[in-house]
Amino acid sequence: MPEIFPSDSVGLVEPRTLHFPDPLKLACGRELPAYDLVVETYGTLNQDASNAVLICHALSGHHHAAGYHSEEDQKPGWWDNCIGPGKPIDTNKFFVVCLNNLGGCHGSTGPSSINPETGRPYGPDFPVITVRDWTNVQARLADRLGIDQWAAVAGGSLGGMQALDWAITYPDRLRHALVIAATPKLTAQNIAFNEVARRAITSDPDFHGGRYQEHGTAPQRGLMLARMVGHITYLSDVSMGEKFGRELRDHAYKYGFDVEFQVESYLRYQGEKFSENFDANTYLLMTRALDYFNPAREYGNDLSQAMAQAKCRFLVMSFSSDWRFAPEHSQKLVNAMVDARRDVSYSEIDSPWGHDAFLLPNERYIRLFRAYMNRIAGEFTDAR
Amino acid sequence: MPEIFPSDSVGLVEPRTLHFPDPLKLACGRELPAYDLVVETYGTLNQDASNAVLICHALSGHHHAAGYHSEEDQKPGWWDNCIGPGKPIDTNKFFVVCLNNLGGCHGSTGPSSINPETGRPYGPDFPVITVRDWTNVQARLADRLGIDQWAAVAGGSLGGMQALDWAITYPDRLRHALVIAATPKLTAQNIAFNEVARRAITSDPDFHGGRYQEHGTAPQRGLMLARMVGHITYLSDVSMGEKFGRELRDHAYKYGFDVEFQVESYLRYQGEKFSENFDANTYLLMTRALDYFNPAREYGNDLSQAMAQAKCRFLVMSFSSDWRFAPEHSQKLVNAMVDARRDVSYSEIDSPWGHDAFLLPNERYIRLFRAYMNRIAGEFTDAR
Repeated sequence: MPEIFPSDSVGLVEPRTLHFPDPLKLACGRELPAYDLVVETYGTLNQDASNAVLICHALSGHHHAAGYHSEEDQKPGWWDNCIGPGKPIDTNKFFVVCLNNLGGCHGSTGPSSINPETGRPYGPDFPVITVRDWTNVQARLADRLGIDQWAAVAGGSLGGMQALDWAITYPDRLRHALVIAATPKLTAQNIAFNEVARRAITSDPDFHGGRYQEHGTAPQRGLMLARMVGHITYLSDVSMGEKFGRELRDHAYKYGFDVEFQVESYLRYQGEKFSENFDANTYLLMTRALDYFNPAREYGNDLSQAMAQAKCRFLVMSFSSDWRFAPEHSQKLVNAMVDARRDVSYSEIDSPWGHDAFLLPNERYIRLFRAYMNRIAGEFTDAR
Repeated sequence: MPEIFPSDSVGLVEPRTLHFPDPLKLACGRELPAYDLVVETYGTLNQDASNAVLICHALSGHHHAAGYHSEEDQKPGWWDNCIGPGKPIDTNKFFVVCLNNLGGCHGSTGPSSINPETGRPYGPDFPVITVRDWTNVQARLADRLGIDQWAAVAGGSLGGMQALDWAITYPDRLRHALVIAATPKLTAQNIAFNEVARRAITSDPDFHGGRYQEHGTAPQRGLMLARMVGHITYLSDVSMGEKFGRELRDHAYKYGFDVEFQVESYLRYQGEKFSENFDANTYLLMTRALDYFNPAREYGNDLSQAMAQAKCRFLVMSFSSDWRFAPEHSQKLVNAMVDARRDVSYSEIDSPWGHDAFLLPNERYIRLFRAYMNRIAGEFTDAR
């Protein structure tokens, strides 16, 4: 590992693409004939394949969870704060697997991939994907990697919802689920924000009913707006206040509609950057997966019944200033786990950073996360 | 009054247009040569003009605060719950004045009016208007109506900010200010939501740099998105949950991006309706007036110093589930008033209806509002 990377980094990493040639039946009733998944792994799988941890990504995430893709890389993977040698998910102990989910836009088969039936990009013809579909795909990935049972499945936000779904759907195939800053179902307000984002994209004249690739364009205005709205919900009122307050960019009021306050400049920058690097159809698909997620639905809307399917142990964590999936969401989930007599540890972490807190370093968060993962490592170390 | 209207309604009302031929100096440094204001009044001005109440409207409001414009009118004015015979602002006692603010799109001079210098609509050339400009314009309106001193100036949200500015700017010209669901300044999050709304409008290809009227079009997509985002911030998570929950429109998941949940259908309807009836340039202008409002700024960012200018008494009310201008905003304002030894009554009303609560009937809200207004009526009744 070159010295230019921090000593607690997994260093240079390389994604690889795995092809899955067998048809996949989806929750929507349709079937995908075959698909690719882009995967990164960190650490080493032990002899009995008992140290594997699956990392599930959130709305705009991907397979690149830790380390760097080149020596010039300015930024490490999205969960680098939590994955690496000596970090909570310690790559000296665990074999860590992260993939770009089906429907994504970072190399796994998704709306921007070529539809073998037509020779053109899927675009709007790509099927709507649910969290359950991802769980199923991840189970096939586990088969491919020779992992019968994950030591843990972990994720934040939409990633946490996948960890939760794993526990319910494949109870024998994981020992622990880490469900962080997540929710057992979206509220009307959550869905409403997603709908604004989708509407921004689909009403952009460059959307062309989702066939923008074939028109040589992309609904960047809509995607930018979607990201701006999303970004507000990832931060808290307090953290935005601390970060920007009412600071002006040019010290005095200009009495116009150009950027006046720092927060406007920040949002526009975030929105623009995102709109240049993310696929609009994938964004639609990811927000819909969020909307649909509701594991209680299959069990007469009784979340405890759903949780009774699980056999693994749980770590649930929420963040005090998260108003996207506020701590009450996690508390409801934990209550259902307790009702179903599951083994669950729950912590509400005090943080001003809103929903984004699950990505950020926070002393108590990191400490609890590490302690829990060390307990897991103890299990398979003893078993060897 | 025809019997078709409720007995506590002001009944049929008619707006009138007043022309103001003298130039108006604006906060932005520019000058408006002349302007029209559309005004409605309810009740009768008493002999010594001591019973006049000014109603200030919020972002999307206008002069039509109470009563009906025709017998066929399905909906009364926007604050009809609070204005009428026997209602909190009792038109048997008070002479109530409400206007469409300068820059509006309901008849008062605004961006869609003809610019006398060019013979074409002002569009983006209309000056940016601040709350202070409105206060000044309203003072001229008071002069025109022969009202030296308002018994009260009242408003909710952006309307409450105008009432607050009246107290600071024209301390001798009002006896009471009712500042409801308002704030002494927007937070970074508030500004961020406004910026998303503005960006949705200005990035709509039909915006044409604000000259859409001359292009025979309007940025309806952008305005719709702006309203959808706004609407989410007017309601609370709880009230959206009570109103819509996760109810599906067609009972089963359709696995697509058309309307699936009731809340989506509601938001789209609200957005579409609004986009057909509101002017985009006015929306930009109103949100900027919100952003800029910060009376402490002229007093070294010391809100108590600003409040020390005031001579009137205050009623400040906030609503428990309002997260647009949460009760803490009002509490900060009240603290500054107390520091400045002003006479203030403050109530936080328990309500699940978010920011919108100031428009809705709520037993405690109406009772406190009525009691306060009756106290004001007692003052001028005694004086007669």
